[in-house]
Amino acid sequence: MADWKNLDTLASFKKLEETKRVDLAAVMSAEAGAERVKKYSVPMAEGLQYNYAAKAVDDDTLKALRELALEAQLSEKFEELYNGAVINTGEKRLVLHQLCRGQLGKDVVADGVNKRAFYEEQQKRIADFANKVHSGEIVNENGEKFTSVVQIGIGGSDLGPRAMYIALENWAKATGNLKMSAKFISNVDPDDAAAVLASTDVAHAVFILVSKSGTTLETLTNEAFVKDALVKAGYNPAKHMIAVTSETSPLAKNEGYLDAFFMDDYIGGRYSSSSAVGGAVLSLAFGPEVFAQFLDGAHAEDELAKEKDPLKNPDMLDALIGVYERNVLGMEATAVLPYSQALSRFPAHLQQVDMESNGKSVNRFGEPVDYVTGPVIFGEPGTNGQHSFYQLLHQGTNIIPLQFIGFRENQTGTDVVIEGSTSQKKLCANVAAQIVAFACGKKDENRNKNFAGGRPSSIITGRQLTPASLGALLAHFENKVMFQGFLWNVNSFDQEGVQLGKVLAKRVLAHDTEGALKAYSDLLEI
Amino acid sequence: MADWKNLDTLASFKKLEETKRVDLAAVMSAEAGAERVKKYSVPMAEGLQYNYAAKAVDDDTLKALRELALEAQLSEKFEELYNGAVINTGEKRLVLHQLCRGQLGKDVVADGVNKRAFYEEQQKRIADFANKVHSGEIVNENGEKFTSVVQIGIGGSDLGPRAMYIALENWAKATGNLKMSAKFISNVDPDDAAAVLASTDVAHAVFILVSKSGTTLETLTNEAFVKDALVKAGYNPAKHMIAVTSETSPLAKNEGYLDAFFMDDYIGGRYSSSSAVGGAVLSLAFGPEVFAQFLDGAHAEDELAKEKDPLKNPDMLDALIGVYERNVLGMEATAVLPYSQALSRFPAHLQQVDMESNGKSVNRFGEPVDYVTGPVIFGEPGTNGQHSFYQLLHQGTNIIPLQFIGFRENQTGTDVVIEGSTSQKKLCANVAAQIVAFACGKKDENRNKNFAGGRPSSIITGRQLTPASLGALLAHFENKVMFQGFLWNVNSFDQEGVQLGKVLAKRVLAHDTEGALKAYSDLLEI
Repeated sequence: MADWKNLDTLASFKKLEETKRVDLAAVMSAEAGAERVKKYSVPMAEGLQYNYAAKAVDDDTLKALRELALEAQLSEKFEELYNGAVINTGEKRLVLHQLCRGQLGKDVVADGVNKRAFYEEQQKRIADFANKVHSGEIVNENGEKFTSVVQIGIGGSDLGPRAMYIALENWAKATGNLKMSAKFISNVDPDDAAAVLASTDVAHAVFILVSKSGTTLETLTNEAFVKDALVKAGYNPAKHMIAVTSETSPLAKNEGYLDAFFMDDYIGGRYSSSSAVGGAVLSLAFGPEVFAQFLDGAHAEDELAKEKDPLKNPDMLDALIGVYERNVLGMEATAVLPYSQALSRFPAHLQQVDMESNGKSVNRFGEPVDYVTGPVIFGEPGTNGQHSFYQLLHQGTNIIPLQFIGFRENQTGTDVVIEGSTSQKKLCANVAAQIVAFACGKKDENRNKNFAGGRPSSIITGRQLTPASLGALLAHFENKVMFQGFLWNVNSFDQEGVQLGKVLAKRVLAHDTEGALKAYSDLLEI
Repeated sequence: MADWKNLDTLASFKKLEETKRVDLAAVMSAEAGAERVKKYSVPMAEGLQYNYAAKAVDDDTLKALRELALEAQLSEKFEELYNGAVINTGEKRLVLHQLCRGQLGKDVVADGVNKRAFYEEQQKRIADFANKVHSGEIVNENGEKFTSVVQIGIGGSDLGPRAMYIALENWAKATGNLKMSAKFISNVDPDDAAAVLASTDVAHAVFILVSKSGTTLETLTNEAFVKDALVKAGYNPAKHMIAVTSETSPLAKNEGYLDAFFMDDYIGGRYSSSSAVGGAVLSLAFGPEVFAQFLDGAHAEDELAKEKDPLKNPDMLDALIGVYERNVLGMEATAVLPYSQALSRFPAHLQQVDMESNGKSVNRFGEPVDYVTGPVIFGEPGTNGQHSFYQLLHQGTNIIPLQFIGFRENQTGTDVVIEGSTSQKKLCANVAAQIVAFACGKKDENRNKNFAGGRPSSIITGRQLTPASLGALLAHFENKVMFQGFLWNVNSFDQEGVQLGKVLAKRVLAHDTEGALKAYSDLLEI
């Protein structure tokens, strides 16, 4: 059994604090920098690479990080997790999202069921359903084929699947894999559902209701919205809706749905893109084979995450460097900057994965920790961000570590040559230039135009964003966040901070309020 | 002439540092909290209100903030700005975006021209053009009406206009004001332009090329992309494109465009939504009258910003409280959380407005400052964010100040009643509940479920998001950022950090690189 200890009780963490700081601008200059770019790189799955040359680390720091990884028993903890230990201590649950995409260790049996077999069965059922929709075996009341799919869900039932869909939509169009277009309804703001429905041909749409408990207020409200629209248009909601839920929820085995597909309590919402939550919408949109490629990519990255040596384990190394920046160098936020329009909503998804997992102040045993935990995560695609908030990243008073992502080829295959280079080359030239500018800065006698440099970044590179490389990319960040949770000794798999507001909102709606809550309710005329 | 001094040299700032800290959880509880909600509220323009009851301030703090406002001469500096002083010292330029929406002080004459008259003339020219497009006087080569508009621009030419368009799209549909649908192309990633073009009926589209200098690489590249698509479809680009640029740019008086509309060097990109940059696309999409209402709302808020007493000036007060949180309480980021799906891209726009303006380490005279300046800005609409990163906001180890926005009525008028309340009521109930939960917390013996509270927020409330209230909202934040720049004594109107990457990217494309830059270029196969 692994030993769960607070970060600041580890001898190796004290040693890490005492390592000499690296002068990033100096080590990244000229030929020394070129050497680092070649040396400080770890292969990821599906041809991706994690390059950390522009991080403020050197061989001494890396040695200390390796010792920290060993003393914190990161590999042992991961092993316990994928072998079915109760890692989510707060909710007393197993943590099995990796099992949705492959077997990493022993068979995990819970509630009398082999969980890998259960997840595979759901994937198979979804694949059958999707194939029947695509072939025209499952059709609407008029015998017409369904042409689009609309996911109704919020939080983890929305952000991840939506980000994955957007990431692959253009790829799918270019490769002939777009079977159905997908849309998403999430916000309880009625204008969200109204706008999506106004632009949807409801007669030919399959709606996926996603709620593990079957009781999420926003989602049930939006379901009512959709049913209303279907009925008004003369269609039977039961012939247009499927559910993704737990087997024990009121949505399971319910005649109001064409079919229901299952996840369980061991899949956290923010980790559910590779479960039925992502599986239904992605299999309908792109076909089950494409979803299977996505799962294979994620599984291949999970396999890499089992490696004990952090210098060969990109997910663990990324986690360790992040903790070094946060807890030793004192940096408070991380910007995620994909140079790929397809990843436009990937930062919003990682914002949930990271901040909801590690935004905690107590450890796994409910004791307050004396160090900072999860950072703020934000980001927009490059080059857009370059023309916006990069100003603060370059010259602000706080240093924000950066996570770049870049691909050598675009997805659509469409491009133009202007001034001797394609748009894709320009995109890549920009990200390369930014990394060096952040690290090395630029001297100028006009101090307003002077850049001190010393601003650390890493980059994940690859040939192209495909279903498989997207899966690897997603798993990388999920695993990074998991390893960081281990280092901080927090439970990364519950979310009490998300529960509180729900209770209070119900009190407001029941007019069971006093004091400030009543005053705000009056202000908003609730 | 105002006296430009560093924040930490002001006696009133020292006094502010010495004011007693407010126990937010205590003062916001029960009836005392209700009193605060009523008392700590300032009217904004267009029926909006800025409520700061849940900020960690009391009458003593507010007194100190008022003294700071006076000593920092915030009103005098704003007066100098709108009367045409060279406030942008780095680039030696006037700062006149407020003049696009109304006259706040004396006539401003620059380059021999009355600038208010110049901006009005451009608005009028845009209005005439838009009316002719809507009436069918200006048509495509086949004599058919244009039905959609596509803006090509990046940074300030994209984020603001796009956020404003999204904010009003549903309102316009519901009120019969949607004349043409709008789309936006920004990223140099070729997949961005390819995807937008694939979903655009180019035969009936007007394209707006927006670049002040007429030389922005991303924008010219995307223009080539669009021209290519038009030519391939058998259309003449010159009959489909207009330019928004400066009078001296190569795009002005150019036969390649149907027409050109002008801004100038005194309008920063991130402040250009109320200039021709926002004017062309918004007037084409919604009609010139709607754009005029938006400008009127912004101007009304600007007028309020002239008030010398910060307790009656919502923009100045918001700025002062933000500086108190940043420089006295030591908070590093701010989350912008609109409970309105229409404002889904408003946080991304504010991210640029704020971080590009005040992400600076030197003062107006190029001297390094010894205090922190602009914070990280991020956000997503509620209730979506509640199911995501709110975990960290509630229970993370760092306290993040929050800026809520909420409206009593939705835009589309469509709604459903579930469990006795409409979706809009649920939306409002959620934001009210969150404010109180963040401020007061919730005690629980299980420390994992315990919420300490003491997490400050403010809320801007209003009846509905309309063109006028959107204008007021935008001007509020622009003015807040301006006042914060005055307090930090930085130049909020240049962006050297955005320039650097452009130069280096060109070097990469010219293969004029060495060391680390070459190594990264190899990695990306540039």
